[in-house]
Amino acid sequence: MARIVLTHAARPSTFDVTAVDEHGAVRDIAIAGEHPLTLYVDKQEILTLMTLGAAPEALAIGYLRNQRLVERLDDIVAVQVDWETNSVAVKTRNGLADLEAKTAKRTKTSGCGQGTVFGDLMEDIDNVRLPGGVSLTQAALYALLDKVRLHETIYKQAGAVHGCALASNDGGNSDIRMFVEDVGRHNAVDAIAGQMWLDGEDGADKIFYTTGRLTSEMVIKAAQMRIPFLVSRSGLTQMGYEIAQKVDMTMIGRATNRHYLLFTGAHRFRADAPAPPPPRRVPAT
Amino acid sequence: MARIVLTHAARPSTFDVTAVDEHGAVRDIAIAGEHPLTLYVDKQEILTLMTLGAAPEALAIGYLRNQRLVERLDDIVAVQVDWETNSVAVKTRNGLADLEAKTAKRTKTSGCGQGTVFGDLMEDIDNVRLPGGVSLTQAALYALLDKVRLHETIYKQAGAVHGCALASNDGGNSDIRMFVEDVGRHNAVDAIAGQMWLDGEDGADKIFYTTGRLTSEMVIKAAQMRIPFLVSRSGLTQMGYEIAQKVDMTMIGRATNRHYLLFTGAHRFRADAPAPPPPRRVPAT
Repeated sequence: MARIVLTHAARPSTFDVTAVDEHGAVRDIAIAGEHPLTLYVDKQEILTLMTLGAAPEALAIGYLRNQRLVERLDDIVAVQVDWETNSVAVKTRNGLADLEAKTAKRTKTSGCGQGTVFGDLMEDIDNVRLPGGVSLTQAALYALLDKVRLHETIYKQAGAVHGCALASNDGGNSDIRMFVEDVGRHNAVDAIAGQMWLDGEDGADKIFYTTGRLTSEMVIKAAQMRIPFLVSRSGLTQMGYEIAQKVDMTMIGRATNRHYLLFTGAHRFRADAPAPPPPRRVPAT
Repeated sequence: MARIVLTHAARPSTFDVTAVDEHGAVRDIAIAGEHPLTLYVDKQEILTLMTLGAAPEALAIGYLRNQRLVERLDDIVAVQVDWETNSVAVKTRNGLADLEAKTAKRTKTSGCGQGTVFGDLMEDIDNVRLPGGVSLTQAALYALLDKVRLHETIYKQAGAVHGCALASNDGGNSDIRMFVEDVGRHNAVDAIAGQMWLDGEDGADKIFYTTGRLTSEMVIKAAQMRIPFLVSRSGLTQMGYEIAQKVDMTMIGRATNRHYLLFTGAHRFRADAPAPPPPRRVPAT
């Protein structure tokens, strides 16, 4: 594992404001934080991310990873967040090769709902081969959905955020290894990517869960992390579908409670277990 | 009104794919389209947007408007979408002044979940003054929410999109004037901004509705369009709240059926009408 100098500068995730409801009652409402965080690499300004601020160091690292500006964690010496100046300073071992070219390209091709690098990533997706010898059982999928549902989240308190989880896939079970929420779904997946590097986690035996839609970038990022299983509570787009087919990803949408739709990569899925009843909550007495 | 050469090149919004559900049944599922659309202005490549493609001309115009690369519709001579090359070519009357500076700035400050220009917009928000002499009644709000709920949408068919509406505000009533859905919430609001220019619609007497979260950029864009009323089915972020307060916008979140939370700008809201019961659907016989 790399030695890396790291702050741990999470911001509070929710703030209370007052609102007036439909009955005219004044209510205290928790809302999600949102902060600009300007990323500097070796003192050069890269861009400003709007973030919940729950995992700013992992976000910065994962952004650089997913934009392929940094090849591996060893290239990073320090990641230091300073909320006084809303900045995160990344120090690299040897500088960012190719930054000018990649930055120019980003300007031109930033995609998503006007989001991240796109053209570049699509060019690379041809080289991605997801592991074929792993499988996901219906039981493990249901275990993951139960654990996600019971997870304490900012979303339950304040809404307005998307969540991503990296989960293990142990035969008939699954456990949440990381869970990150952010105001943008791309930030949440980037923060997972950064934390995977920090924790030395490989994607090949994992499941990636997101509350967000499976658009092209979401599928591309999961593929870049070599994660063969992508699960979402939401739906998907045509390009997300086509890219998942192309990289042979096992992609499941509309996954909630005991329902799901298996869209691609069915050869890795084992619907062997009969659907068990969902766990019942014990009624309050 | 400006004379402008315009294609009308909407793509089909949904595509059918097959999926396997939790019972092992193979089902036909409609999914939302997603297409790269590369924007050229006077033959210079600006960026690639990922879009549903339902309103590509309005999206291109609204993008240029909201990024303040074009001052008014008169500056645009032609907007021509070609799906063979996934491109939209905008021809301007006098070129884009200041493009280099703004493009450089965009690279550095693109925000949202890694989305749109940010620093630039925040600098300008000090100059925004929203109209004070207008009001929104609870009855008009409920009328809007009913009409949005009954509107035929891609979302109902396929999910994975966000919708935005521009609505009139006529005393105790409200009508949907424009409704745009897209895979990114920023595209949907940009397409509304473009269509407002094309239709000569002013924002000052309108309501802006979005299914998406009220993050900083969403509030900034509504403010730039001079729309005093912003309504969302979803929640909001701290920066969205702070900016709405700063520009004195009347902002309502969690608005669905007969529920809502009025967060800011209460002086423009008239909760005079007692909450009527929601319209009942006639049961199928």
